[in-house]
Amino acid sequence: MSRALTITDIDDLAVGAWVIGTGGGGSPYLNHLNVQRLMADGRTFDLIDPTELADDAQVAVVSTMGAPVVMQERLQDSRDVARAVEIMADHLGSPFDAVMATEIGGSNAFQPLMAAAHLDLPVVDADAMGRAYPEAQMTSFAIAGLQPWPLSLVDPRGIEAVISHVPTWKWMERASRVLTVETGSMAATCKAPRTGVEVKRWSVANSMSLAIELGATVRRARAEHRDPVDAIVDETGGRRLFAGKIIDIERRTTGGFLRGRAVVGGLDAWAGREVELEFQNEWLVARLDRQPIATVPHLICLLDVESGEAIGTETARYGQRAALIAMTAPELFRSEAGLAYVGPRAMGYDLDPVDPLA
Amino acid sequence: MSRALTITDIDDLAVGAWVIGTGGGGSPYLNHLNVQRLMADGRTFDLIDPTELADDAQVAVVSTMGAPVVMQERLQDSRDVARAVEIMADHLGSPFDAVMATEIGGSNAFQPLMAAAHLDLPVVDADAMGRAYPEAQMTSFAIAGLQPWPLSLVDPRGIEAVISHVPTWKWMERASRVLTVETGSMAATCKAPRTGVEVKRWSVANSMSLAIELGATVRRARAEHRDPVDAIVDETGGRRLFAGKIIDIERRTTGGFLRGRAVVGGLDAWAGREVELEFQNEWLVARLDRQPIATVPHLICLLDVESGEAIGTETARYGQRAALIAMTAPELFRSEAGLAYVGPRAMGYDLDPVDPLA
Repeated sequence: MSRALTITDIDDLAVGAWVIGTGGGGSPYLNHLNVQRLMADGRTFDLIDPTELADDAQVAVVSTMGAPVVMQERLQDSRDVARAVEIMADHLGSPFDAVMATEIGGSNAFQPLMAAAHLDLPVVDADAMGRAYPEAQMTSFAIAGLQPWPLSLVDPRGIEAVISHVPTWKWMERASRVLTVETGSMAATCKAPRTGVEVKRWSVANSMSLAIELGATVRRARAEHRDPVDAIVDETGGRRLFAGKIIDIERRTTGGFLRGRAVVGGLDAWAGREVELEFQNEWLVARLDRQPIATVPHLICLLDVESGEAIGTETARYGQRAALIAMTAPELFRSEAGLAYVGPRAMGYDLDPVDPLA
Repeated sequence: MSRALTITDIDDLAVGAWVIGTGGGGSPYLNHLNVQRLMADGRTFDLIDPTELADDAQVAVVSTMGAPVVMQERLQDSRDVARAVEIMADHLGSPFDAVMATEIGGSNAFQPLMAAAHLDLPVVDADAMGRAYPEAQMTSFAIAGLQPWPLSLVDPRGIEAVISHVPTWKWMERASRVLTVETGSMAATCKAPRTGVEVKRWSVANSMSLAIELGATVRRARAEHRDPVDAIVDETGGRRLFAGKIIDIERRTTGGFLRGRAVVGGLDAWAGREVELEFQNEWLVARLDRQPIATVPHLICLLDVESGEAIGTETARYGQRAALIAMTAPELFRSEAGLAYVGPRAMGYDLDPVDPLA
């Protein structure tokens, strides 16, 4: 089941991961270039299915924490995330067998590839969110109640830390977030390592393949002059909720996050109506004429109407023509245990979750 | 030269360390009780001279970081600082031979005793400040350019971290401070470990003995109905600068520090005049009628006129009768390299240092 990723796979991943990043995870643009460069230098990427992992395999789980606006301005060295994995291996006193993404959304889909290239490890075709979420505890591993520690963190100025114990997943988020903020709201991290059996039981399996396939769908639709937004809706089983023009955007980088709201004024069938989107790195709540029409944990995606490219919370700008689509979240995240981590109330909204397809 | 500390030594240390804490280091009250309890439980404390250390001895350097107001309210478990040393030993993969204080001022004089009691290690008669300073980089070890990493940090809720690399001493302060603030502005830490040869060359030697002797001086003066403030001035070679009544105190706990100012209205020879004291955990600048009369790195001590007990920046209150005394800092801290870390400009004041005895 293992396969070597191609240049086209990498290009497709940049498109697909950005769509399911639901506005966050950071624009893949810069780290897509990083991985293209690594491939041009002869590095190869071996994508393995979670089922191929030995039960006792040690899997490094990586992401870059921070605020997407900062990630656009501060270029990442692909060695930073590899360094985070090395520090973790030193801390554990044992090497890793594979690397996987914490979140498949946006730029974070490229983090395991960058680590793997420098460490010569395979990449597991899985993540722990199936999208992007703003905080470190918003994962399938946390919902499963797996051990939240340790975590290693790297800033390229030479700041390296290991958070070796925490009482809760939320404390791991808090402790790693303050270090991230202090180093400039961006830091490469290696999260609590997982065994093969934990990855097989609790990860969102095959999410990298699905992101690549979603990108390929967009690529084929463009080549065939079909509507790429329709192609994404068909491929994902999502629903088109709204279309219009971005008429307002408010952003602030605070507490290590990008927070704010965007307003889309309706066009065509939606003329005269408005959608407001609130975000914390990711789009969290969509309201049509002030009524919630989609909330976390469900996936809210704002797409460029022409190209089908995702519009990120840090890249959205006045005047963009945008289609709003949404998809139902996987069952684990809709469960009572899941909603405690990734439901609207977990993110500060006094709202019940709204499934856009219900 | 090694000796077992007596109950009287511990009582004297509480008084002497609080005087040379220059308002900071935290009130010794609670940790004095901790150490009294450990002695009542049969623990002994072996104080060794730095010259007794083997050149390659591994010495743990401990303190509790945070804001003194918080330390008054949150009781410390003596095991916390021992745990910080254990985490450091695990990180290094080798055990420690002795423990010493980062700062001899205030409550932090008791930290190596608490660690030593649980770890069954001797305490080195030395520290790295010869007083208390607000920030972690304000040490003889930093001035000497020794390696600033690693640092371990413990919060009793089960938050444990190791900052394993930093580019500068100031970055170690920044990274450890944000974790301290996040855990509630108080955390037990084990700083960068030192070898025996480093301690012998760069520590402030015999500062624990001197603090104990200073406390004994106060105790004897009280017993003999002599003025304890005069006794402190004689013992330390300091100077009495002012006496009066505290007529204003402003305090705020911000960024993990206690900051503010106190105003003392003159009495007797100083009637009609005012001293203003600015502080960041410690008294940093004293101004008489708006003219600086003493600044860091020199020691500024506010004492209760009756008892000779130090008045801390967190305990100073309206109406207290206080004597202001000051002492010249050791030469290392007055050097150009020293002032870069502990001079008025290093603490944000556009002032040249003022030696109160010059």
